Amino acid sequence: MNVNTLHPLPLGGAAVEDGFWADRQRLNREVLIPDGARRLEAAGNLHNLRVAAGRAEGDFRGLLFADSDVYKWLEAAGHELARRPSDSLARQADALIELIAAAQEPSGYLNTYYQLVRPRERFANLAWDHELYCAGHLIQAAVAHARGRGDEALLAVARRFADHLDAVFGPGRRPGTSGHPEIELALVDLFRLTGERRYLALASFFVDQRGQGLLQPASFGASYFADHVAVRSQSEIAGHAVRALYLAAGVTDLYLETGEERLLEVMRAQWEDMAARKTYLTGAVGAHHRDEAFGAAYELPPDRCYGETCAVIASIMWNWRMLLATGEARHADLLERTLYNGFLAGFALDGGAYAYVNPLQVREGAPAHVRHPWFPCACCPPNVMRLLAGLHGYLATADAGGLQIHQYAGATLRAGEIAVRVRTDYPWDGRVEVEVLDAPAGDWTLSLRVPAWCGEARVDGVPVAAGEYAQLQTPDERVVLELPMRPRLTAPHPRIDAVRGCLAIERGPLVYCLEAADAPAGTSVDDLVLDPAGSLEDLPRPDLLDGIVAVTATASHRRADGWDGGGWPYAELRPGSPGRGDGPPVSVLAVPYALWGNRGPGAMRVWVPALTG
Amino acid sequence: MNVNTLHPLPLGGAAVEDGFWADRQRLNREVLIPDGARRLEAAGNLHNLRVAAGRAEGDFRGLLFADSDVYKWLEAAGHELARRPSDSLARQADALIELIAAAQEPSGYLNTYYQLVRPRERFANLAWDHELYCAGHLIQAAVAHARGRGDEALLAVARRFADHLDAVFGPGRRPGTSGHPEIELALVDLFRLTGERRYLALASFFVDQRGQGLLQPASFGASYFADHVAVRSQSEIAGHAVRALYLAAGVTDLYLETGEERLLEVMRAQWEDMAARKTYLTGAVGAHHRDEAFGAAYELPPDRCYGETCAVIASIMWNWRMLLATGEARHADLLERTLYNGFLAGFALDGGAYAYVNPLQVREGAPAHVRHPWFPCACCPPNVMRLLAGLHGYLATADAGGLQIHQYAGATLRAGEIAVRVRTDYPWDGRVEVEVLDAPAGDWTLSLRVPAWCGEARVDGVPVAAGEYAQLQTPDERVVLELPMRPRLTAPHPRIDAVRGCLAIERGPLVYCLEAADAPAGTSVDDLVLDPAGSLEDLPRPDLLDGIVAVTATASHRRADGWDGGGWPYAELRPGSPGRGDGPPVSVLAVPYALWGNRGPGAMRVWVPALTG
Repeated sequence: MNVNTLHPLPLGGAAVEDGFWADRQRLNREVLIPDGARRLEAAGNLHNLRVAAGRAEGDFRGLLFADSDVYKWLEAAGHELARRPSDSLARQADALIELIAAAQEPSGYLNTYYQLVRPRERFANLAWDHELYCAGHLIQAAVAHARGRGDEALLAVARRFADHLDAVFGPGRRPGTSGHPEIELALVDLFRLTGERRYLALASFFVDQRGQGLLQPASFGASYFADHVAVRSQSEIAGHAVRALYLAAGVTDLYLETGEERLLEVMRAQWEDMAARKTYLTGAVGAHHRDEAFGAAYELPPDRCYGETCAVIASIMWNWRMLLATGEARHADLLERTLYNGFLAGFALDGGAYAYVNPLQVREGAPAHVRHPWFPCACCPPNVMRLLAGLHGYLATADAGGLQIHQYAGATLRAGEIAVRVRTDYPWDGRVEVEVLDAPAGDWTLSLRVPAWCGEARVDGVPVAAGEYAQLQTPDERVVLELPMRPRLTAPHPRIDAVRGCLAIERGPLVYCLEAADAPAGTSVDDLVLDPAGSLEDLPRPDLLDGIVAVTATASHRRADGWDGGGWPYAELRPGSPGRGDGPPVSVLAVPYALWGNRGPGAMRVWVPALTG
Repeated sequence: MNVNTLHPLPLGGAAVEDGFWADRQRLNREVLIPDGARRLEAAGNLHNLRVAAGRAEGDFRGLLFADSDVYKWLEAAGHELARRPSDSLARQADALIELIAAAQEPSGYLNTYYQLVRPRERFANLAWDHELYCAGHLIQAAVAHARGRGDEALLAVARRFADHLDAVFGPGRRPGTSGHPEIELALVDLFRLTGERRYLALASFFVDQRGQGLLQPASFGASYFADHVAVRSQSEIAGHAVRALYLAAGVTDLYLETGEERLLEVMRAQWEDMAARKTYLTGAVGAHHRDEAFGAAYELPPDRCYGETCAVIASIMWNWRMLLATGEARHADLLERTLYNGFLAGFALDGGAYAYVNPLQVREGAPAHVRHPWFPCACCPPNVMRLLAGLHGYLATADAGGLQIHQYAGATLRAGEIAVRVRTDYPWDGRVEVEVLDAPAGDWTLSLRVPAWCGEARVDGVPVAAGEYAQLQTPDERVVLELPMRPRLTAPHPRIDAVRGCLAIERGPLVYCLEAADAPAGTSVDDLVLDPAGSLEDLPRPDLLDGIVAVTATASHRRADGWDGGGWPYAELRPGSPGRGDGPPVSVLAVPYALWGNRGPGAMRVWVPALTG
């Protein structure tokens, strides 16, 4: 029983044609994916597979989940080959798939770390050792190649492993679940592709095993890997952010295939907890460095924001599934915010480096936050690649009544008899033109998301409400949506202690920031105070960061000599205590947060103290 | 060449007689120290020594630096026996010393982890394995017993180990330094006791070895263990807080014995950096959980404050040495603040539990912050014990001209021909009476610290300046110092983002906090907004927390329904945006931060948002 409210477009139903995301998909194809293959070679991930396949000698290299990076890269390649053929990429992928098949044991087991390092301890360390996590990524890669380009070589490997897992785990067999979720959503997807209900049942089994304390040792507490409570009783989002969100995506997938209402209820409750109390303005999640975890409600420090790129991607994955389940615009809204801010900040403009952590503030003199070409724990880079390669899949959905456009990009979208071409310079410009290329003979509905950030949108000149879908019944050949892109000041909930008294600049779906590179001469980003009464203006800057619309604002500069506490940073409150921003007004330039850190190290802040009184 | 500006009082020169600290020294003697011995037995620390001594069988238990907890407990016992004899404690200490001697190898080597677990790898893992750290604590314990009660049994053990270290390390011998400083200050103290310059030279050698990248792997970066730069070039405090401060204490000790000016220069620079930019209002240090480290300048989040009890104690140790080196009141000021706030919060009022982490804010619904009876990593509890047992040592100093009183407690203080009796109900009351019991025939000077927090102090009715010492030339038989104890509101430096727009309540040396237990009915600590124009009044509460002076303040309660952002905690700024504290005024009760968390779990905050506009 499939209970989707909305359905993904069929394979090939969406294609980004031009504009903002076309540039990024091209960068992914030309820079990120080829570089990723070289990095996997250099880091030893492929070496491990060769040794397991008996084609090389040597010790295991890298972290124990090194295989998963290979699978995520392969999944990206699968999406990319489905998007647009490439003989060289296909050859590269095929060779890798052949190597993976050779590394697989006759039993179906496949995990080079356990094969090479701890052969007698398989499935003995499910809490920490990522065997099922790696299996999940293998399955996702296999599904991508099978569905995307009809190549089932990797699928055969993945099914053998899945069948092995099914023989080991399950009711009446071995108990257990994975310390790092991922296998759940992968098994549901394998079920969707193959129709084999065993895979769905195994996903369900792994979900049911949680909350029983099976995952030990729980060094960071059982909530770290969502084992503190049964899934059907968990109403708050908690724990390690990537783990929590991969699991949520898998549980939502399970709901989509089983229709079990309780699953959707807890997913809604967790999502509302996350959105209302545990998400940064950029869509980033994960406030703690130590355990890479969600913090308490409203615990959202901008400087110590962890906001791991993988967690941001996981949030996009979950929001997409919640959108399919409910059809509610709020999920597409948060997906948009996360995509344009938290996610985009995760890689450099030139594709040469990645961020693992995505803070909203870096102080002057703090250790430089720089993106890195690769990481010893390289989970994020191939995650960026697979998201970009499959990005068009998030643009639109279909239902029996028509087509829903959730994200605006220069693209062609097809569902059944409906085909449209979208033209836009989004996110710089809010005009979106939808040309109807094909339409069914009878009535149909074109639904256009009007983002909640938007005040006064219009469709063909007629005002439409924000935060929901404008529904156009059997539209004309051409529809024009206008989303006003005026810059705006955003205030935080008063319980978010860490940014009290601050404001952020937003424009359309983009969060902006101040960077040291743009600070007026003689000022420091750390000492600028925003004047909320000042003007806020667009400033197109085709010369900056590959072309942006910047925003100018009015600020004053706190005098460095204004502090009278001497060598102690706390002083008795007296009338006229300093720190209110008492310098002359200056004009400051804000740039999209997503593009920060592309001009060398330096201070940056999204939340800027506001002039008060 | 000893270059002290001020000298510690001789052994027995200071005794706490009554009042606030007498209560806590009694608690230490009657509850903490006896309980500590039982905990060390239960946790296996003593078992390890027995196995190493060949008196028991079994595996090593606990963390690899388990021995150090035993030594710190023994040091506490040594201070306590010097303070006041106890046959039972002496027998317990002697038995333990005999066991330690039996566990020592003929070479002098002594570390039960390496003896039992990795006998072939001695001194091969100096970065992470605490061998020299444990040796340092052994030496400190030995010095305490030798100096305090003239028992040299443990000193013989410590000297054998120190001689062994001196044979292994040094110029022309093995290079290396400890990943966790402690050996440096211990060796200087061993030199002071024995007069053996070899120990001073070895301390100097270990200091000189830093900044060369010898400590590997530097997983958290070389600054984590102060190996990022040579000691004589380090002008900013950085890295793991306990490590940084034990090292600073050792380097300052080295300066005191060698007079090398460069050492004092870098100590001053590091101290000023710490005090001006990296210390919490409570004196706590260490803003990061992940690496237990100092943060960037002004990175002082109250909720994620680590403020490890050991780091707080280390700060007290360093401030004391800086005071001896310079005679500057600011070091005694920070020592007082740290002692009365960050340190005291480290153990429960009934002595039954300890804090490892000392935040300045706990949110409603956040995981309960509770003190624990003991820890797997039990560094903090015996550190609390040794500080309390030797606390009287921090009260006063002497120089050629007289006596300096730095901390006020009911105490007898003697230096040479000078003897005084101090009577006071500090920190609840600011009246301090000093009775001169004995005095030299000629001129002498009694110096009384007038804390910087103090506005208008008087000595015998005459106004004296705050932030320095009131110097009384050959005083009369009785001197009365009056430190006004009115409660006050404190504002943070504007660069401390995490508490922008907030105020704290202080009174005398004590920082206050709001706790859920005292929140007016129907209000939440998370939603109280302080009115800086409201009255701030003392409220003696003999019934509360063993008797305190509480403070009442005026606040309003932010309406829970005031947020109009729906399920998203960020909203466009509009005139009259909510969150300003718009409920009716309520009177709130603030209690000393040091005593928080003694009435069950619940929200707490030191920094309270202030009503603005």
